[in-house]
Amino acid sequence: MNLYDANHCPVNQFADSECISLEHGDGAGLTRQLIHQQIRSKFANPILDRLGDAASLPTVTGPLAMTTDSFVVSPLFFPGGDIGSLAITGTLNDLAVAGAQPLWVSLALIIEEGLPLREFERVMESIRQVTQQAGIMIVAGDTKVVPRGVTDKLFITTTALGTPLAGLGSDPRSIQPGDRILVTGSIAQHGMAIMAARDSLGIQADIRSDCGLLLPAVQALHAAQIPIRAMRDATRGGVAAVLHEWAAQAGVTLTIDHGQVPLNDATRGMCELLGLDPLMVANEGTMVVVVPDGWEAAALAALRDVPISRKATVIGQAHPRDIAPVTVIRSLGRDIPLDEPAGAGLPRIC
Amino acid sequence: MNLYDANHCPVNQFADSECISLEHGDGAGLTRQLIHQQIRSKFANPILDRLGDAASLPTVTGPLAMTTDSFVVSPLFFPGGDIGSLAITGTLNDLAVAGAQPLWVSLALIIEEGLPLREFERVMESIRQVTQQAGIMIVAGDTKVVPRGVTDKLFITTTALGTPLAGLGSDPRSIQPGDRILVTGSIAQHGMAIMAARDSLGIQADIRSDCGLLLPAVQALHAAQIPIRAMRDATRGGVAAVLHEWAAQAGVTLTIDHGQVPLNDATRGMCELLGLDPLMVANEGTMVVVVPDGWEAAALAALRDVPISRKATVIGQAHPRDIAPVTVIRSLGRDIPLDEPAGAGLPRIC
Repeated sequence: MNLYDANHCPVNQFADSECISLEHGDGAGLTRQLIHQQIRSKFANPILDRLGDAASLPTVTGPLAMTTDSFVVSPLFFPGGDIGSLAITGTLNDLAVAGAQPLWVSLALIIEEGLPLREFERVMESIRQVTQQAGIMIVAGDTKVVPRGVTDKLFITTTALGTPLAGLGSDPRSIQPGDRILVTGSIAQHGMAIMAARDSLGIQADIRSDCGLLLPAVQALHAAQIPIRAMRDATRGGVAAVLHEWAAQAGVTLTIDHGQVPLNDATRGMCELLGLDPLMVANEGTMVVVVPDGWEAAALAALRDVPISRKATVIGQAHPRDIAPVTVIRSLGRDIPLDEPAGAGLPRIC
Repeated sequence: MNLYDANHCPVNQFADSECISLEHGDGAGLTRQLIHQQIRSKFANPILDRLGDAASLPTVTGPLAMTTDSFVVSPLFFPGGDIGSLAITGTLNDLAVAGAQPLWVSLALIIEEGLPLREFERVMESIRQVTQQAGIMIVAGDTKVVPRGVTDKLFITTTALGTPLAGLGSDPRSIQPGDRILVTGSIAQHGMAIMAARDSLGIQADIRSDCGLLLPAVQALHAAQIPIRAMRDATRGGVAAVLHEWAAQAGVTLTIDHGQVPLNDATRGMCELLGLDPLMVANEGTMVVVVPDGWEAAALAALRDVPISRKATVIGQAHPRDIAPVTVIRSLGRDIPLDEPAGAGLPRIC
């Protein structure tokens, strides 16, 4: 049995009273009990505690940034994280790479009848830890329970609000030939950790998801006053998807040196085993950054001061548009076009 | 065959190209095509059009209200609405009864592989119509496609931001003996419309959901400067759930006159058939309002000027706490305690 697979509630393992039931979602007594014991007690704050139909947020002077994401990852638990930590970090990372400091998050849960309460608690606890680490408040929520078989265990939708950090607006269209491309850590770990955690593959690999908050890395770049052309967490489609999107927007060719891309041995091995290009595999705490030529050393120094981006590396450069939008210098020293990721390689990785 | 049941994609009815596939959710070409053709084109606005990692919202002076809801209704289409109109109205109604004018909404979609594109389009079009009617913008979104069987067709999570209307703060704890209880329309229609639309019941009933925007009714009360003790849309658990929550918060007994509660004949008939108390059945465009004694005529006049609340009626009054928190005057003229709704009567009604 795989340790990271969250099982349904077999009769012999959990009593009904130890599982989420439809009554937990009907708005009456058990719903209030679940919300009070598992959610309000963990996420208590002055805004959530009012428990009205809508959260009353304090006045913010200046513009706001808003982002939303649904998480349907399977299995719920994997080395390096779970659907809870992923739902918060994923959404906060979208704000971070947009140059915004997160303030508030809403949390909407769709739970399958029969989910063991112990697993639900574990997910809520991991959400609590990440929100505490990020210094943000959960201010609104919703809980729906659907009958067995209507959904798979637990889906989480998070929506975050934040305030833009002054001077951190980036625009991929501003990327120019000569600009340097950086990546903040070892790639492909999230996607491969999820694959390894799936029972059906029977793979034993020591790979942890990179699931983590990118805000400290963004703040470090901000504090060092690094001009940023483009910044993006390399989630679905990996580093390749980010580079393709930027190359199309800026009308340049982005060339990376395969040998410079940080990659753990275990991750490389598993990618080879499955015939996957690590450049196309999802990350959840690793971003790609483009800075003007000459700024790469300062950017690296700033990033390497922060745990989440300690392995930051320069991996390439922008050039005038050549035959292909994205190319990779592989072992023979020649530029090879890098395909755009296509097809449903790995469903339910986030 | 029930007209309102959204079918999966049987091989003979829709070609694969006419259905949502996993590739529509993998972040690459087909995802961009789906988002462009079905979402961006329908909801185009200056904020959404920027398509960054996070939406940049203009500066708002003053506090904000925020609310989130997941919608898992089955079937997707029912008389009077569909999951799309429901997801927008439900979330905006939460803002409205909190006394807030909606500004922006985010839209997160979890789609089952195989959902006919035609049905997806129909839901998006109905979202477009409601957002237009409400005068709000969709500013952020997310699209996930999960393999067949992992979810049931389509779940939608909406998160809304709005600004409080000055002077419209209500607090159920302020309810006092003598206060009047109003309802804004015929009750129990949403729950019964969903039940009738479920194939398995084989019921033919001419019942339409009351699914509709309550903001105009709230604005009418605001314009008429009606002091409001409490205001709530009577969703899960119906009018009974709202009254029970308020009675507990205010420490009073809320008594309603059964004969005064607006109820359509078809809805009454179906509730009798199923042995359900219409006071416990969900609504999606009907709210309960408590005003101080003496203000009920002005409140009714304001509400009846607006289509959504044209059938507004005084249904009861607050009293000092008696034996039961909520009582109903039934046909014999005596107060009978009204139970708090409990148990999963109707899963997946919203």
